[in-house]
Amino acid sequence: MKVSERLRRDADNIWKRIIEHPFVVELYAGTLPMDKFKFYVLQDYNYLVSAIRNFGIISSRADSVDAMREVIEILYLESESEFKGYEEFLGKLGCTIEDAVNVEPIPVNTSYTSFLLSTSSLKSYAESITSVLPCFWSYAEIAEFHRDKLRENGNRLYTEWASVYLSESYLKLVGKMRGLVDKAGEDFQYKKLKTTFITASRYEYMYWDAVYNTHTRHR
Amino acid sequence: MKVSERLRRDADNIWKRIIEHPFVVELYAGTLPMDKFKFYVLQDYNYLVSAIRNFGIISSRADSVDAMREVIEILYLESESEFKGYEEFLGKLGCTIEDAVNVEPIPVNTSYTSFLLSTSSLKSYAESITSVLPCFWSYAEIAEFHRDKLRENGNRLYTEWASVYLSESYLKLVGKMRGLVDKAGEDFQYKKLKTTFITASRYEYMYWDAVYNTHTRHR
Amino acid sequence: MKVSERLRRDADNIWKRIIEHPFVVELYAGTLPMDKFKFYVLQDYNYLVSAIRNFGIISSRADSVDAMREVIEILYLESESEFKGYEEFLGKLGCTIEDAVNVEPIPVNTSYTSFLLSTSSLKSYAESITSVLPCFWSYAEIAEFHRDKLRENGNRLYTEWASVYLSESYLKLVGKMRGLVDKAGEDFQYKKLKTTFITASRYEYMYWDAVYNTHTRHR
Amino acid sequence: MKVSERLRRDADNIWKRIIEHPFVVELYAGTLPMDKFKFYVLQDYNYLVSAIRNFGIISSRADSVDAMREVIEILYLESESEFKGYEEFLGKLGCTIEDAVNVEPIPVNTSYTSFLLSTSSLKSYAESITSVLPCFWSYAEIAEFHRDKLRENGNRLYTEWASVYLSESYLKLVGKMRGLVDKAGEDFQYKKLKTTFITASRYEYMYWDAVYNTHTRHR
Repeated sequence: MKVSERLRRDADNIWKRIIEHPFVVELYAGTLPMDKFKFYVLQDYNYLVSAIRNFGIISSRADSVDAMREVIEILYLESESEFKGYEEFLGKLGCTIEDAVNVEPIPVNTSYTSFLLSTSSLKSYAESITSVLPCFWSYAEIAEFHRDKLRENGNRLYTEWASVYLSESYLKLVGKMRGLVDKAGEDFQYKKLKTTFITASRYEYMYWDAVYNTHTRHR
Repeated sequence: MKVSERLRRDADNIWKRIIEHPFVVELYAGTLPMDKFKFYVLQDYNYLVSAIRNFGIISSRADSVDAMREVIEILYLESESEFKGYEEFLGKLGCTIEDAVNVEPIPVNTSYTSFLLSTSSLKSYAESITSVLPCFWSYAEIAEFHRDKLRENGNRLYTEWASVYLSESYLKLVGKMRGLVDKAGEDFQYKKLKTTFITASRYEYMYWDAVYNTHTRHR
Repeated sequence: MKVSERLRRDADNIWKRIIEHPFVVELYAGTLPMDKFKFYVLQDYNYLVSAIRNFGIISSRADSVDAMREVIEILYLESESEFKGYEEFLGKLGCTIEDAVNVEPIPVNTSYTSFLLSTSSLKSYAESITSVLPCFWSYAEIAEFHRDKLRENGNRLYTEWASVYLSESYLKLVGKMRGLVDKAGEDFQYKKLKTTFITASRYEYMYWDAVYNTHTRHR
Repeated sequence: MKVSERLRRDADNIWKRIIEHPFVVELYAGTLPMDKFKFYVLQDYNYLVSAIRNFGIISSRADSVDAMREVIEILYLESESEFKGYEEFLGKLGCTIEDAVNVEPIPVNTSYTSFLLSTSSLKSYAESITSVLPCFWSYAEIAEFHRDKLRENGNRLYTEWASVYLSESYLKLVGKMRGLVDKAGEDFQYKKLKTTFITASRYEYMYWDAVYNTHTRHR
């Protein structure tokens, strides 16, 4: 079994809770209150910027020139198309990039990005590339699992947002990232990778949970 | 006003909630259930090791040779007497160092240490030394605030634990750390230090809260 | 005066020695022995890979999102077109990428890349982006200074190599990098940037000198 | 064969050149011109401070808590007794710490410390702890090899300086460091450690050579 498959299997109970989280379910069904969605999108700015910085660090630690160049390709994609897409989407929500910049990150946002950045700064390349996989991969699985709901979904912003994670280019990106983990993890102590993958998966869950609930409290 | 005073003032509402947290209050009053305390002490191992690694990084970034040498003194103190004291205390609780090593860190533990380590790895020395101050300093303030309760406290382990933070040597250490922050923060953008100090203070609160509640859930 | 101009002026005596170095002069005149050139190109592999890793680190430390994204653009350019160009050029020299990978870096190569990587890992973004400027910029100045010699240069490999540094796209890149230094250096202690710029310029000189002389000794 | 022995054997030809370097020979024989010695001692300040920062980083990367605590012990020793000893020795040479601070590091000094710092920042703990071994160990071997010369050496400063490296406490320190390398290197790719050890040994040689010759040129 490839390392990424094994990791996915060992995190299965957390991933189930992610996929069934009300934020996710309501988003795909079109019933998520718009202010919760807006809150999530605005929080995402800090995550996105940190994730890009993080890929910069990971590229510097890659264990081969080929891996380094693949990570840089992903980094560039994030910094260019992902960033541009994000800014455009903000506009459709009636927000500006300044709104997003000025948003204070909620604790789980700070915690998750701190975890990613301390992993890439201090641990091995294998653990670093593993730590970023749950975010990319779970978005694809969420989309695949709930895709049928989208047909009934009357909220254009939600369907547009979701369509990204169903696109061929996104699936190709996830495939590349899994490939990087499979390669880096081949001769690496599995237990450490598992801890990393599960910790990151847990942050994914906590993130969905926090944006679903924090906002409610803020109203 | 010195930088550390200003930081303390600007974090006042969080510090009040720390000082009045039931874990802290019950610990000083002697009414904290022992299994909650044990849970806290066992969690502390991961925090302590990470904090020591973190001081290693901070020492390498110090902005002067004098500051570097002071940070190393603190680092050595942590690695020697603090570590030894911790091991001895574990024994009094009927636990071994292996018990502590094998404990899985709760999410806030991982989050807090990741925050400290990513700050020291990627941000300025001024922000790094500021990020470690709330832990040291708040323990002294907690002890000072609740010291009268200790007279009625019949739990020897709790009074022994608390006495550390009332000792002259501990107060001197806190004074040194404040001095390092005052110096490093003198010509540094205050806003960044404030964000750092408040984030770390919030983790202190979340930590107390998690060890108080996680355990209950685990029983 | 902009920071980059001031740095250039303060490193003038070193830059003169770089521009007039026999390796450079003979290369542009077409009289450089081919084995010296080959030795230089093969050494360049280690430098190029380290420079790319280095840009990954710098991108993670950039002091604004705009700067981060500009650094990533340069990083991607290096990792893609520069790398591809390098591989193609190796072929024209009758060498393979494996030849380049297997070459042992000479001491100044290790020293220069270690200097760049320790600067980006441990010092400020302003110093890091300053440390990479001399390499890019001096190649453009060398090309400009010696461009007239190229007309008499009968060595097609040399003229093709040199033409890169005369191209509009290369000059634009140098302009971008100067812009990043001007911006980052605006409110930064000039003395530190000067030390960084001069140290890197000195490594440029030592590099030319080493590839010119090391090889001779090896024959 | 233990890793450190194997490394020592594989670097034998460089170590011979170190041990027989005129700077070293003349120092132990008492014939080294005092201004060369002074130049060396003043250069040493930058090296010492960087070495201490470097141990801070290495402690943060140690692969076990035991190793971390041993590295911190060495770090503290360097920062305390080594530093104090250095300052006192400067006084005997008629120099102040300010003289040492204001000395510009020669290129090999910058290169060597950059190599150590980039290794500890970006490579594995095993490579980092290996990179610092040649400095400590070769000083002990030099002292052992030339100890008989000291009897004829009429220069008290030289004999005092050399006696440090013959002391039991110094040999114990070297033994500890070898132990750390033996342990960390046990399951580590030997080839990488060899490259690291040889590179650091080569810097040792280049350092002696530079302080012997640079000064002459400066007169």
